Amino acid sequence: MYHFKNDYAEGAHPDILQQLLITNLQQQPGYGEDDYSLAAKNIIREKTGNPNAAIYFVTGGTQTNLLVISALLRQHEAVISAQSGHIFVHETGAIEAQGHRVITVTTDNGKLNVAGIEKVLQTYSLRPHMVKPRMVYISNATEIGTIYTKREFEELSAYCRAQHLYLFMDGARMGHALTAENNDLTLADIARLADVFYIGGTKNGALLGEAIVFNSPDLAPEFDYILKQKGALLAKGRILGIQFLELFKNDLYFDLARHANRMAMKIAAAVKACGYTFLTESTTNQIFPILPKALIKKLSEKYLFFEWQEIDEARSALRLITSWATEEAVVDEFIRDLKEGLPMNK
Amino acid sequence: MYHFKNDYAEGAHPDILQQLLITNLQQQPGYGEDDYSLAAKNIIREKTGNPNAAIYFVTGGTQTNLLVISALLRQHEAVISAQSGHIFVHETGAIEAQGHRVITVTTDNGKLNVAGIEKVLQTYSLRPHMVKPRMVYISNATEIGTIYTKREFEELSAYCRAQHLYLFMDGARMGHALTAENNDLTLADIARLADVFYIGGTKNGALLGEAIVFNSPDLAPEFDYILKQKGALLAKGRILGIQFLELFKNDLYFDLARHANRMAMKIAAAVKACGYTFLTESTTNQIFPILPKALIKKLSEKYLFFEWQEIDEARSALRLITSWATEEAVVDEFIRDLKEGLPMNK
Amino acid sequence: MYHFKNDYAEGAHPDILQQLLITNLQQQPGYGEDDYSLAAKNIIREKTGNPNAAIYFVTGGTQTNLLVISALLRQHEAVISAQSGHIFVHETGAIEAQGHRVITVTTDNGKLNVAGIEKVLQTYSLRPHMVKPRMVYISNATEIGTIYTKREFEELSAYCRAQHLYLFMDGARMGHALTAENNDLTLADIARLADVFYIGGTKNGALLGEAIVFNSPDLAPEFDYILKQKGALLAKGRILGIQFLELFKNDLYFDLARHANRMAMKIAAAVKACGYTFLTESTTNQIFPILPKALIKKLSEKYLFFEWQEIDEARSALRLITSWATEEAVVDEFIRDLKEGLPMNK
Amino acid sequence: MYHFKNDYAEGAHPDILQQLLITNLQQQPGYGEDDYSLAAKNIIREKTGNPNAAIYFVTGGTQTNLLVISALLRQHEAVISAQSGHIFVHETGAIEAQGHRVITVTTDNGKLNVAGIEKVLQTYSLRPHMVKPRMVYISNATEIGTIYTKREFEELSAYCRAQHLYLFMDGARMGHALTAENNDLTLADIARLADVFYIGGTKNGALLGEAIVFNSPDLAPEFDYILKQKGALLAKGRILGIQFLELFKNDLYFDLARHANRMAMKIAAAVKACGYTFLTESTTNQIFPILPKALIKKLSEKYLFFEWQEIDEARSALRLITSWATEEAVVDEFIRDLKEGLPMNK
Repeated sequence: MYHFKNDYAEGAHPDILQQLLITNLQQQPGYGEDDYSLAAKNIIREKTGNPNAAIYFVTGGTQTNLLVISALLRQHEAVISAQSGHIFVHETGAIEAQGHRVITVTTDNGKLNVAGIEKVLQTYSLRPHMVKPRMVYISNATEIGTIYTKREFEELSAYCRAQHLYLFMDGARMGHALTAENNDLTLADIARLADVFYIGGTKNGALLGEAIVFNSPDLAPEFDYILKQKGALLAKGRILGIQFLELFKNDLYFDLARHANRMAMKIAAAVKACGYTFLTESTTNQIFPILPKALIKKLSEKYLFFEWQEIDEARSALRLITSWATEEAVVDEFIRDLKEGLPMNK
Repeated sequence: MYHFKNDYAEGAHPDILQQLLITNLQQQPGYGEDDYSLAAKNIIREKTGNPNAAIYFVTGGTQTNLLVISALLRQHEAVISAQSGHIFVHETGAIEAQGHRVITVTTDNGKLNVAGIEKVLQTYSLRPHMVKPRMVYISNATEIGTIYTKREFEELSAYCRAQHLYLFMDGARMGHALTAENNDLTLADIARLADVFYIGGTKNGALLGEAIVFNSPDLAPEFDYILKQKGALLAKGRILGIQFLELFKNDLYFDLARHANRMAMKIAAAVKACGYTFLTESTTNQIFPILPKALIKKLSEKYLFFEWQEIDEARSALRLITSWATEEAVVDEFIRDLKEGLPMNK
Repeated sequence: MYHFKNDYAEGAHPDILQQLLITNLQQQPGYGEDDYSLAAKNIIREKTGNPNAAIYFVTGGTQTNLLVISALLRQHEAVISAQSGHIFVHETGAIEAQGHRVITVTTDNGKLNVAGIEKVLQTYSLRPHMVKPRMVYISNATEIGTIYTKREFEELSAYCRAQHLYLFMDGARMGHALTAENNDLTLADIARLADVFYIGGTKNGALLGEAIVFNSPDLAPEFDYILKQKGALLAKGRILGIQFLELFKNDLYFDLARHANRMAMKIAAAVKACGYTFLTESTTNQIFPILPKALIKKLSEKYLFFEWQEIDEARSALRLITSWATEEAVVDEFIRDLKEGLPMNK
Repeated sequence: MYHFKNDYAEGAHPDILQQLLITNLQQQPGYGEDDYSLAAKNIIREKTGNPNAAIYFVTGGTQTNLLVISALLRQHEAVISAQSGHIFVHETGAIEAQGHRVITVTTDNGKLNVAGIEKVLQTYSLRPHMVKPRMVYISNATEIGTIYTKREFEELSAYCRAQHLYLFMDGARMGHALTAENNDLTLADIARLADVFYIGGTKNGALLGEAIVFNSPDLAPEFDYILKQKGALLAKGRILGIQFLELFKNDLYFDLARHANRMAMKIAAAVKACGYTFLTESTTNQIFPILPKALIKKLSEKYLFFEWQEIDEARSALRLITSWATEEAVVDEFIRDLKEGLPMNK
């Protein structure tokens, strides 16, 4: 059985493990004050073109989201998210557990736009009987594989600034977004247009780790306390620093994401060639082909994937995820199996 | 400069890194459902003699403490700790941030006893105007290097059960406690006498990781939700499972702790031989020698350590910590430097 | 200007003030242990036919909701509400501030049914990545004036028990529900079918005060601690006890609600007679007539009310609320003004 | 049996009830926007000499403390209190339930001073492993009847400003403090020197109610949301406004407190005349005489009071509390009974 279920089925990219080995017995200060973490932060500051960015490494996406959101919001403030947003769907109420409502906007493509946010502000206007929307949370790539264009992101950013809304980008799959064929955003754009974002390591080749980037250090001047208080400050912070250093010093991060995207697009092209359609217009490493149920059953004998949604009696949409570690040979085999499933080939 | 400042200055024991390498490309389910985690849990169940224990792996001690305490306490309940307890001193109010008071008892030796807890129960009796004490938190080894005897621990356990108090042992340095020369407790004793405890990996050779052990699975039947909600559930749970499997399959865990203790005791013997005394009666890997300030200054040119407390104008107590990675050659050098500091040798 | 904006524009029913005067200098224990509170609880236990009910008096509806919900739910559990539910719309995220998600179900009539809840359970099934639905919150009368029939409520209750969901009825306007012309529920039915409910005083003639009724005392055995911890335990608990005693000893509570309903229904009949329609099928003291904007403008010169929702370019729905204190003469005048607004009368 | 157990055994001062009656049927906006509340705020602004003060009325002391403290502190910040402070002793962990540690300082007289706070700042300096002290909480009068002098309060205020610590005065018994014979503080001093304080109504003649005064409106610009979110915003806010208006429009507030103090001092003088001593140097309405246990037993047959603390085998300290409602005739009788208890009189 081969995994197309997620992008964290393997360990880390071998170069990362190699660095852990090489540095292993170097004594270092704890709690993120090690040389590797400092160097990794400097490289990320360079790549984002923002020498003042305040950067913190933590272990996972849900942790990141609850830390950032609770650090920036006051108790009566709320965050706006697409209804498909990770904080609303798959984080076990982590944001509410920090005391904040997640206000949702229904979207088809997983992306928020100004109109949707505007409507929320209108609905939530009866002060003080309603929470105060104060942050916009977006994911790039989204949870359904789509990405924000530069124009879309600029519009959001301008609107958020005008409305005093923080703009926070969840970058669990930022590598995949920035290396998508139709992408026109850069890390520097994101640093310029968002208030805070994170760069996901776990889903792009690290053992674990996400890099939180506050574009202005004024945004969370005491974030270190919050990290510690919520159990997110590793004694051996080095293991996060070493990984991000390795990922960014030679753009390995983007190479890995590009591979994942290429594998997904290769499958997508085959799906299309077979005449099947998709649930979403993904250009990243998650695709949602709509296939006949009989074919799905057949594929599920060799491959692991998530049956996302039933379309009708005969068809369902799958979620297939590729990663830095996806073997092209398996992808080719999958494509062969897909084609064999075509009626004419049976 | 050589680190005696903490027991997490290096990476992981090489055998652990080796296992990460060997298993790296094996595809595995996420979120702790991987084969390694399951195997590691089984070995720990065996070692504790409790086939029903519910075990969870997380990334650090503060995270563990806030998860366990918030999972077991209702909102109006409080935890009792020694004033020197880690949850009171060094966790940035993590327990209060979960809504619970930490009630402290002043002790000389870092250990709680029945008399101290009894007094708390008397003080906190004016229902409903006071929180309800509901848990006793102890550390073994304690934050000042001492350990609980079997008898002490049995007394605590019997009292807690009679008073409906949960007994939770923080085992960040449990390896060091159980391998101390004066120890008479076993892992099985702890499993029998505590309600919940954790086995620290971070401070004993792992890259990161603590194993939470609920001795009865009824205690936290939905702990998985809480792990996820608080950002403690790693997508690649395998990296914790692999490490604990390696630490426990051949008792590496205890060998590493024994080494750390031996290094500390070697220094302690030298300190004693020099005629100096100690602030606490430690038999584990943290010792607190009281030394002349001039000598401290001299030692601080070559070694990193924490100046714990001023004793008088001429002397201070240091905290020296050894670890699985402490090199015996450096310990010997430190002892030489210590002896050279003696007046007669100057 | 006359208020049809809410049912709390005046002070208290004169009989209640009279009792406050009569009892004023009687010394009594504090914190709800006074004779009046004890007597009031006994009467409520009688009226509900449940001698074991655990009853607590607090000062307002939002306070009640946050106390009850946070007392019954564990941290990873959530409450299901209609999208129009007070806890979702008008309590400034009070439930989320206690750490819990409010899961909403869209309904036309403000009422939850089994199908809606069932769908929530299906959606929230991916343990542990989603919160666990654990309580159903309903309002009777609802926020749009409708009421639950006995049959509807029995179905909900049976389903909730089968699914281990707590059933909590918000009775801010319970008096109005139970005295509506189409009502077939009794206080005893509610005590039998819900796990917990509250009887609203603030909106039915008290200065302030709501009575929380746990039908089983096992549900919140330490609720007194929680009341105190959240600032809801009045030193002079007597002022709540005296009011509920007066409201229930001779069924004043129901008389007041009946008056409010009668005033609303009188207006509703006139609205209907004029040929206008309603946004909701209310039989209680909140009605939502759809009127021409010109007429609304005219009425707004003499009466205060809430413009609830625009229907089209020419019409809007109002919310008119009557209360125990609404003067029939004013209602008659309002009706006259309404009729004068008819095209033929202009 | 006559109550010396607390100062909330009766209802409200008759003038207050009278005002509730007079105003009862006046229609008013809800949620504190009524004319009475606005007028009461204006009078308090006048009395404090601060036209910009932001004032909110709530129902009780614990509620006030948790609202103010949680509104001003960020999640990693803590409040410093005397160990005898109400927030530490008698509020069921309300502050911790909001996520904040209460750091205590041991004092003999219930008062904090600069030296005590300074020591806390030194202890809590290991960023980010410890919470950040950010507020100083004091009570005036204190929980043991003592009061702050102007000089003491000025020193505290200067120190807090220099150290960026909010200074919050709990005035549950502020009337008693400001009318004590040895008082030299004014309401205007407090408005000038504290950041926020509250004026207690419940313990000085109101049915219920406390007035929170932010000396600078910038301190909590969105406090209205927080009031609502935590269930503290009364629909009929008028009942708080009416009471504070009555209490302050003719200084009734101070007259009531003066009476309570005079009753206590009358008893205290008799205690002294009998040759007994006191546990604390109270000049307000709570006194703590140390009496022979036999005498206490005798007194307890006619009077209710709290046995505060055993002094030795023969003696205990009582807490006797007088109030605006304490009858002088009963005080005289108590004094007679006290004198009859003298050995020579037996």
